[in-house]
Amino acid sequence: MSEKQFVKSITSRDEDFAQWYTDIVTKAELVDYSSVRGSMIIRPYGYAIWENIKAELDHQIKATGHENVYMPLLIPESSLQIEKDHIEGFAPEVAWVTHGGDEELAERLCIRPTSEVLFGEHYKNIIHSYRDLPKLYNQWANVVRWEKTTRPFLRTLEFLWQEGHTCHETEADAEAEARKMLEVYASICEDFLAIPVLKGTKTEKEKFAGAKHTYTIESLMPDGKALQSATSHYLGDGFAKAFGIQFSDREGKMQHVHQTSWGFTTRIIGALIMVHGDDRGLVLPPKVAPTQVIIVPVAQHKEGVLDFAYKLKDQLGSQFRVNLDASDKKPGWKFNEYEMKGVPIRLEAGPRDIEAGQVVLVKRDTGEKIQTPIASVEEKIGELLEDIQDNLMKKATAYREDRTKVIQTYAEFKRYYEEENGFAQAMWCGKRECEEKIKEETSVTSRCIPFKQEQVADTCVYCGEKAKHLVNWAKAY
Amino acid sequence: MSEKQFVKSITSRDEDFAQWYTDIVTKAELVDYSSVRGSMIIRPYGYAIWENIKAELDHQIKATGHENVYMPLLIPESSLQIEKDHIEGFAPEVAWVTHGGDEELAERLCIRPTSEVLFGEHYKNIIHSYRDLPKLYNQWANVVRWEKTTRPFLRTLEFLWQEGHTCHETEADAEAEARKMLEVYASICEDFLAIPVLKGTKTEKEKFAGAKHTYTIESLMPDGKALQSATSHYLGDGFAKAFGIQFSDREGKMQHVHQTSWGFTTRIIGALIMVHGDDRGLVLPPKVAPTQVIIVPVAQHKEGVLDFAYKLKDQLGSQFRVNLDASDKKPGWKFNEYEMKGVPIRLEAGPRDIEAGQVVLVKRDTGEKIQTPIASVEEKIGELLEDIQDNLMKKATAYREDRTKVIQTYAEFKRYYEEENGFAQAMWCGKRECEEKIKEETSVTSRCIPFKQEQVADTCVYCGEKAKHLVNWAKAY
Repeated sequence: MSEKQFVKSITSRDEDFAQWYTDIVTKAELVDYSSVRGSMIIRPYGYAIWENIKAELDHQIKATGHENVYMPLLIPESSLQIEKDHIEGFAPEVAWVTHGGDEELAERLCIRPTSEVLFGEHYKNIIHSYRDLPKLYNQWANVVRWEKTTRPFLRTLEFLWQEGHTCHETEADAEAEARKMLEVYASICEDFLAIPVLKGTKTEKEKFAGAKHTYTIESLMPDGKALQSATSHYLGDGFAKAFGIQFSDREGKMQHVHQTSWGFTTRIIGALIMVHGDDRGLVLPPKVAPTQVIIVPVAQHKEGVLDFAYKLKDQLGSQFRVNLDASDKKPGWKFNEYEMKGVPIRLEAGPRDIEAGQVVLVKRDTGEKIQTPIASVEEKIGELLEDIQDNLMKKATAYREDRTKVIQTYAEFKRYYEEENGFAQAMWCGKRECEEKIKEETSVTSRCIPFKQEQVADTCVYCGEKAKHLVNWAKAY
Repeated sequence: MSEKQFVKSITSRDEDFAQWYTDIVTKAELVDYSSVRGSMIIRPYGYAIWENIKAELDHQIKATGHENVYMPLLIPESSLQIEKDHIEGFAPEVAWVTHGGDEELAERLCIRPTSEVLFGEHYKNIIHSYRDLPKLYNQWANVVRWEKTTRPFLRTLEFLWQEGHTCHETEADAEAEARKMLEVYASICEDFLAIPVLKGTKTEKEKFAGAKHTYTIESLMPDGKALQSATSHYLGDGFAKAFGIQFSDREGKMQHVHQTSWGFTTRIIGALIMVHGDDRGLVLPPKVAPTQVIIVPVAQHKEGVLDFAYKLKDQLGSQFRVNLDASDKKPGWKFNEYEMKGVPIRLEAGPRDIEAGQVVLVKRDTGEKIQTPIASVEEKIGELLEDIQDNLMKKATAYREDRTKVIQTYAEFKRYYEEENGFAQAMWCGKRECEEKIKEETSVTSRCIPFKQEQVADTCVYCGEKAKHLVNWAKAY
C-alpha cells in the first residue's frame, strides 16, 4: 500500500500554507511522527539532506581551526544553576531525569538544552595559560527543549545541531570569532542551500540567555514570516566568571577568558522546504540534494533500454549523485515521485531517444525539457545543476526584496502587517518597552539590528523619540 | 600548567593494569571526567579516533545497502513495555524523564537504552507489502544505560554507537543479514583496528533481551580478560508480533517480518587502547590514527629548518595525515608527547639531516629509527605504515593464541583461572545451570559458542554429561 501506483497530491501552497508544509514533509518521506509528543523520526531522505548539510558545515568548521569533541547528554541541576541568566532562560524548557532504574536520584539531571555549562566546567579543567588559548571546540549532538507547540524540523522537542564553544584571550578575539562563525553560517545558507539571509544583532530582549551579544541570520519564508536560521553569541566573560575559567596572561596576571557559542540546527531543513518548495513538492538546490539526477527509463521492457540506463548511471555516477529507478512502476508515477522529492534533474531515456543518440533532461525548478545529445550529457547536466542552484537563490532573493518594506510611521507599520507579512525596516529608539508594545499590538518582533545600518527616519517607529537603530521586524517562526 | 615542559609518565602496565589504562586515557587527552557520574567528555584526540572509526564503518554500512535515519531520544514507558523480554532486560538500567519544565508528565519517558521499540513502531507504519522489504536502516546515536560501575569508554552511563535495525521477508534473509553485519564488524576490528576477534553465538543466558540469536565478536585484552566488541542479533518475529509489523507476502497472505539489530560502540576505543598500548602510552594502528606522521623539527631556530619542515608537511599531506609541531617546546618533550598519543611515525629533521639530504623516521610500535633519503621519504612512510598496521595485528594475534587454552576437566579449568586469565576452550552440555555454576565459582562466563566448532572432549567441562558445544570462556569486561 505504500507503493500506491497513483499520483501523490498535496495541498496548494497558497491555499493552506501550513497544510502544504505538512504534506511535503510526510509525502516526500522526510519525517514520520513518533509516539513521543513533538519528536520526529527523520527518515532516510530527510536524514540524507541533513548528512549533506552536516558534511559541508563540518568541513568549514574544521577549516576554520575548530576541533570536534563530545560532551555528556545530562547536566546536574546544580551545574545548570551556576550561571544565573542561563538557568532563568532555560529552566522552563528542560526535561528532567529523576530516576535511574528503580532508584530515585539524589540530584535531578536535565537533558542538555545547550551545553555552555558542561563546556564551562571542562574549560576550567584544561585552560591555565594564554598558551592554551584559543580553545576552539565544536560538537554535533542532540538537544531537548520542552516546547509546547511543535512542527517537524521547525520546532521539535528534540533536535540535532552542532554547537561551537570557544575561549579566547581578549574580547576582540571572541567578538571576531562570533562574527566569523556567523559568516560561515550565512555562507552555508546562501552558497549551499540557496537561502538568502539577513545578518544582524539581536536586541537585548531577543538575545541568548547569558550572552552579551547575539548575532543572527534571518531568512524570509513564502508566507512572509521570518525564520531565525542560526545564531552566534559573544558570551563575554560571564560564564568564565561563573565557572572560574581563568588563565595566566602574557604578563603573568590571572584573567577570565572571553567566550563564544554558536549553533546550526535541523531547523534549517524547514526553511529549505518552505523557501524552495512548490505545489508539486520539494525543490532541492543541487548542492544539498541527495540525488542530483534521477534516471527514469521509458518503455524499459524494450530491448536495450535498461542496459543503456545502467551504463549511463555508471558513467554519470563519478561526477554527480545519480540514481536509476528501474522498478516496474509506471514512468508517470516515477515522474511524480521524484518531483515530490525535489530531485533537481530528471533524465528520461526511451527507445526512440536512444536511437536518436539523445536523452531528455527535465529541470525540477522550471519544468523545462531539454533534449541533449548523449555525447554532451555530462557537460549539460553540470551546467543545468549550476543554473538551478543560481536560479533558486535569485528567486528567493527577489522574493525577499519584494517583501521587505521601509516603514516610517506606526500607522503604516500596523497596516502593513494587517494586509500582508514580510520584513519591515523601521527605526527604533533602543527601549525594550517599545519592542514589547509592538509585539503585544501586532505580534511582530524585532528580528535583528542589521549590520548594514541606514537612517530611514529620525524617530522611533513606535514612540517617536530619537531613533537609535534601524531594525528589521517581522512575524516569526 | 597544562603545557608542562617535563616528560609525562604513566604507571607501568604490568604493575597496575587498571591504573595504566586510566593514565593513558587522561594523559593522551582522550577523555576528561565530567560532573555527571559515569559520563565522560570525549576530547578532540579521542573524538578524532571515533570520527575515523565512524567514517569507515558508515562507509561499509552504506556499501552493504543500508540507509541512515534518526529516531527520537525518548521512549514512552508504555511503548517500552510492549515487548516483554525487552522491558525485563532493560528496565533496571534506564534513566527516566518525569518532568518537562515545571510540569510533571502524565507518562514517564525513558532515555533510549537501544531503539528496537521506536524502530518497531515506525516499521509498523511504513511496511505493508513484500515490496517494502527488506528495510535496512541504521542510526548513529547516543544511548544511556544506568550502569553502577563505570570506566571511560569501557562502560559509561552514556555512550555513542550505531544501531542497525532491519526487516526481512524470511528468517533466512534476516539470519544472513545478522551474520553479514557481524562480518562487517569483524573486518573493522581486524583490518582497520588491528584487533583480532573470535566470532560466535551467545548462549541463551548471555543473549540480547528479546533476541532469538545473538552473534558476537570477542577480543582478548592484555590482562587476559575478554571484551565483547560488537554484537548482531537475529530477533526473529518477536518484536514484529509485539508491534504488529506485518506485510502481505508474494501470495497475498499477511506475515510478520523477521528482524535484526546490531550495534558498534565507543567501547571499542577501550579495546584499542588496551590491545596495543604500552608503557610509553597509546599505540595507534595507522589506519585509525588521527595523525599518522608527526614532524618534529630539531634545532628549529637554525636557518632553514622550519622552512624545510613546513614544505615537507605540505608535500606529505596529500598522501598521509601529517602534523608538524613547531611550538617552542623542547624536542624531547615533543617526542614524549607524540609517543603518549600513539602517533605511528615520528619524522625528525635537523640541520645535519637536511644537509645530508635525509630525515629520521621513528616507528612508534618498535622504536626503530630509520634514516631515509628525502627523495624516497613518501615511499618509505607508506611502507612503514603498512608494516606497523600488520605488525600490531600479528602481535595481538600471537598474544591471543598464546592465551587461549584447550581445557578438558573442571579441575584444570579452575587452576587456569586461579593462575592466569585468557580464553579457555572447553566443552559444554548446553544447560544454563552449568554456565551459572561456573560463573558463580570462578567468575568466568561463556563468551561465545565459536562458529568454528571442534570436539575437544566428549563431556561437559562442568557436569560431565554429554557435550553439545565447544565454548570459549573467559573473565570479561
